Amino acid sequence: MTIRVTVWGENVHEQKNRVVAEIYPKTMHGTIAEALNRQDGITATTATLQDPEHGMTAERLAETDVLIWWGHAAHGDVSDAVTERVAEAVWSGMGMIFLHSAHFAKPFKRLMGTPCNLSWREAGERERIWVTSRQHPIARGIPDHFELENEEMYGEPFGVPEPMETVFVSWFQGGEVFRSGLTWRRGAGNVFYFRPGHETYPTYHQPLVQQVIANAVRWAHNPEARLVDPTDAPNRPVAQALEPIVERGPRLHHDGEAGYR
Amino acid sequence: MTIRVTVWGENVHEQKNRVVAEIYPKTMHGTIAEALNRQDGITATTATLQDPEHGMTAERLAETDVLIWWGHAAHGDVSDAVTERVAEAVWSGMGMIFLHSAHFAKPFKRLMGTPCNLSWREAGERERIWVTSRQHPIARGIPDHFELENEEMYGEPFGVPEPMETVFVSWFQGGEVFRSGLTWRRGAGNVFYFRPGHETYPTYHQPLVQQVIANAVRWAHNPEARLVDPTDAPNRPVAQALEPIVERGPRLHHDGEAGYR
Amino acid sequence: MTIRVTVWGENVHEQKNRVVAEIYPKTMHGTIAEALNRQDGITATTATLQDPEHGMTAERLAETDVLIWWGHAAHGDVSDAVTERVAEAVWSGMGMIFLHSAHFAKPFKRLMGTPCNLSWREAGERERIWVTSRQHPIARGIPDHFELENEEMYGEPFGVPEPMETVFVSWFQGGEVFRSGLTWRRGAGNVFYFRPGHETYPTYHQPLVQQVIANAVRWAHNPEARLVDPTDAPNRPVAQALEPIVERGPRLHHDGEAGYR
Amino acid sequence: MTIRVTVWGENVHEQKNRVVAEIYPKTMHGTIAEALNRQDGITATTATLQDPEHGMTAERLAETDVLIWWGHAAHGDVSDAVTERVAEAVWSGMGMIFLHSAHFAKPFKRLMGTPCNLSWREAGERERIWVTSRQHPIARGIPDHFELENEEMYGEPFGVPEPMETVFVSWFQGGEVFRSGLTWRRGAGNVFYFRPGHETYPTYHQPLVQQVIANAVRWAHNPEARLVDPTDAPNRPVAQALEPIVERGPRLHHDGEAGYR
Repeated sequence: MTIRVTVWGENVHEQKNRVVAEIYPKTMHGTIAEALNRQDGITATTATLQDPEHGMTAERLAETDVLIWWGHAAHGDVSDAVTERVAEAVWSGMGMIFLHSAHFAKPFKRLMGTPCNLSWREAGERERIWVTSRQHPIARGIPDHFELENEEMYGEPFGVPEPMETVFVSWFQGGEVFRSGLTWRRGAGNVFYFRPGHETYPTYHQPLVQQVIANAVRWAHNPEARLVDPTDAPNRPVAQALEPIVERGPRLHHDGEAGYR
Repeated sequence: MTIRVTVWGENVHEQKNRVVAEIYPKTMHGTIAEALNRQDGITATTATLQDPEHGMTAERLAETDVLIWWGHAAHGDVSDAVTERVAEAVWSGMGMIFLHSAHFAKPFKRLMGTPCNLSWREAGERERIWVTSRQHPIARGIPDHFELENEEMYGEPFGVPEPMETVFVSWFQGGEVFRSGLTWRRGAGNVFYFRPGHETYPTYHQPLVQQVIANAVRWAHNPEARLVDPTDAPNRPVAQALEPIVERGPRLHHDGEAGYR
Repeated sequence: MTIRVTVWGENVHEQKNRVVAEIYPKTMHGTIAEALNRQDGITATTATLQDPEHGMTAERLAETDVLIWWGHAAHGDVSDAVTERVAEAVWSGMGMIFLHSAHFAKPFKRLMGTPCNLSWREAGERERIWVTSRQHPIARGIPDHFELENEEMYGEPFGVPEPMETVFVSWFQGGEVFRSGLTWRRGAGNVFYFRPGHETYPTYHQPLVQQVIANAVRWAHNPEARLVDPTDAPNRPVAQALEPIVERGPRLHHDGEAGYR
Repeated sequence: MTIRVTVWGENVHEQKNRVVAEIYPKTMHGTIAEALNRQDGITATTATLQDPEHGMTAERLAETDVLIWWGHAAHGDVSDAVTERVAEAVWSGMGMIFLHSAHFAKPFKRLMGTPCNLSWREAGERERIWVTSRQHPIARGIPDHFELENEEMYGEPFGVPEPMETVFVSWFQGGEVFRSGLTWRRGAGNVFYFRPGHETYPTYHQPLVQQVIANAVRWAHNPEARLVDPTDAPNRPVAQALEPIVERGPRLHHDGEAGYR
């Protein structure tokens, strides 16, 4: 079975910033997708903010097993409708990976229910990423630690809910730490946040970073059929109760009436 | 120290539905607040949907240690601005308790990041609530189980994130089960969901239900000072780095510039 | 890749109790293994308490990807050495599934760190198992609920740590509830507890029960290489520190000395 | 209400090692207890390995609301009987705090169900402890980070189960990170692990370290009555079933018989 990945890129700094354009001549999302396409069993395509509906139509989401999201300068330009549609796809079973500055992406904040804030410093300092959960599928083939010689610093506290699992924790040269690989489940969808990837450094060309992302794709993929009714709240009529019961007391709702939302 | 509770009531069915008005002549929120005011160390007041800004002004939230929320017929009438203000108060450290049909309240969905859906049946059937976490502070004084002879059924799956703790699980006469007491932490705020409380039954007059709510108030109360900056993402300049570092590589941001949001 | 399963059976009541022997003429573990062997990609064998070292030699554990454990009458006959060896295999990455009365098995208590107690009643009553986590891999192909017409009752509180995920919750005819499908991770090993399976009922002949067990095998299987040093606590000498540091202050340990355990 | 704390010290290096004796002339446990006794509402006493039954008699545990444990050189000298008695007290509701090298203490390993291993280096290097959960009761009065100029390094992976909450993460000068403040619940007992405290450095004289320990005492304290039967598995006879049921099918157990353990 092939896992169909869509890599969503904001595609702003690649167009406007010379440094970013030189590091990522094929764009950041293009670079990530290209690396994934070298993996067995993964097919990756891209979508961007500038596409109609940001490339996130219902059809596209239905054909996406795992969505990867990178954004930074234009979080606010993502529409509320697309944000909600993406969240609903996750609840239905689509896997989702948020990269680096996507901690402030609208779909991430929507799925977490928290501010998703952190402290930061742009100094090209050393980051060392430690595996905290040995033999976790997302750490497959990753040594006990690896280094990124130039990265933006993100520091704790990271304003997210307690994760299901902590897979990586980062050390920074300037003295901070960060939980840089975290998992959650939202509805039927697996969610992973991975910290590295500031656009002025060649992070997504790094083979171990590419490996983590490919691992996360396999981990996040839920092979079950997508839920068609992820927000449905079905009424179970008395007549169809699994154990025989007799209706008692007053009611608000008429037979067959939908519940309040 | 006295815990300041605000009981928020939608206050719709008490005004429109004769059955509800007879069961709760002092309104549902009024009944809950009255029971809390009989507890040592708790002072409870009320607010309703019909109040200006639904009674949820910044000042009111700042003076609320724990907010209790009951809504059903008019979830959609709660403004987005108030929803966000309530969520921000929780992230800052306000405790929050959602009751029964508030599973679909906008602040609950905002804090959970999931659909918060369930199945339901309005038949006045028996609910038996089991304690799953012995000696949990929210179960103080509660026997290993207790019964509500007439309640609305809520059935699994309950569309919420995995909780921090499962405190109660309910058995229903018609054959369903439900995780009816769940805890989460969102930012600095403690969140509790408690299932019982359909408006056509006298549930909030029940002493054990009142006891659970009072226990939950004490559990949810965070005595620490409220965070003033729950969504802030501070820059840590190179010059103030805790370990001496030298800036390397290109930058996107100028000194003192705020990050993208 | 084929997943190698060992089904461990206590094999006491099948030999001594006529009812059990009639329901399970091929033994309980034999029945479970036979069902697994009908699945694609799974090869199951059996081991019993009566085998030398209970069949749980280091070699056997090294060749077991997922171990399934059923015991009841003779928990105390399992040696401490085997218990520890099994726990260590789990920490190394072996998946493990505990069935029904194995809630009191020594390896389960060792891995949980809690009493693992519950209430119980042997009355052949109806159990209805509800899926609480839609589209979870362990619930693959399972409808929103299914029934076992005759089962032993297990009731809450279940004395285990908060799980990573709650996959199933059971309703019992006599009025109790039970979290009947729970996941944990212990070291590199995935652990699942599944409630049904009292030996005087034909539960393990039930296709949906067999399906859950097969699903759980696939979920529990960690394809990563088994850790060779799951309990190792390595010293990181100053001379090999990743950042240059100078030793300061007094020391307890000499160079190359192992830490205290 | 006064919280009764017992600080358990191994009391080996204070007697044998000149450096430790000079830093802690009143012993490590004595120093910790003395600091706690300066706090309102806390009364702390001490017990040591050398006391009869290591000072951990049933009576002493019954009078201990929160037990603090420090050990290092003599973990193996703690008897299995005392280990089990301590674990049972935790399940009954006693709070427990494990300090530093107690990650390998027998009661900690018993309660975690995992190896509890880590990497280490004794070089007197700088540790910087970051708060990851703002306004958590255990972080009360603690700034966003604080430093210990000389500490032993503990590095990830830390072989423990996923915690309920991550409260602190440490940065080390030599390049490692460690989740240094973690919470769990085991039965009715709250458990906290706090990393700092190598015996050759004056860590327990540090006011912020003392503050964290006092905070953790208040957090760990469960004011509910201690469970008298934390490992009990009660039978619920058919005649006393909460819903009327008729016994069906064969039974293993006679009326009133205890279950297998």
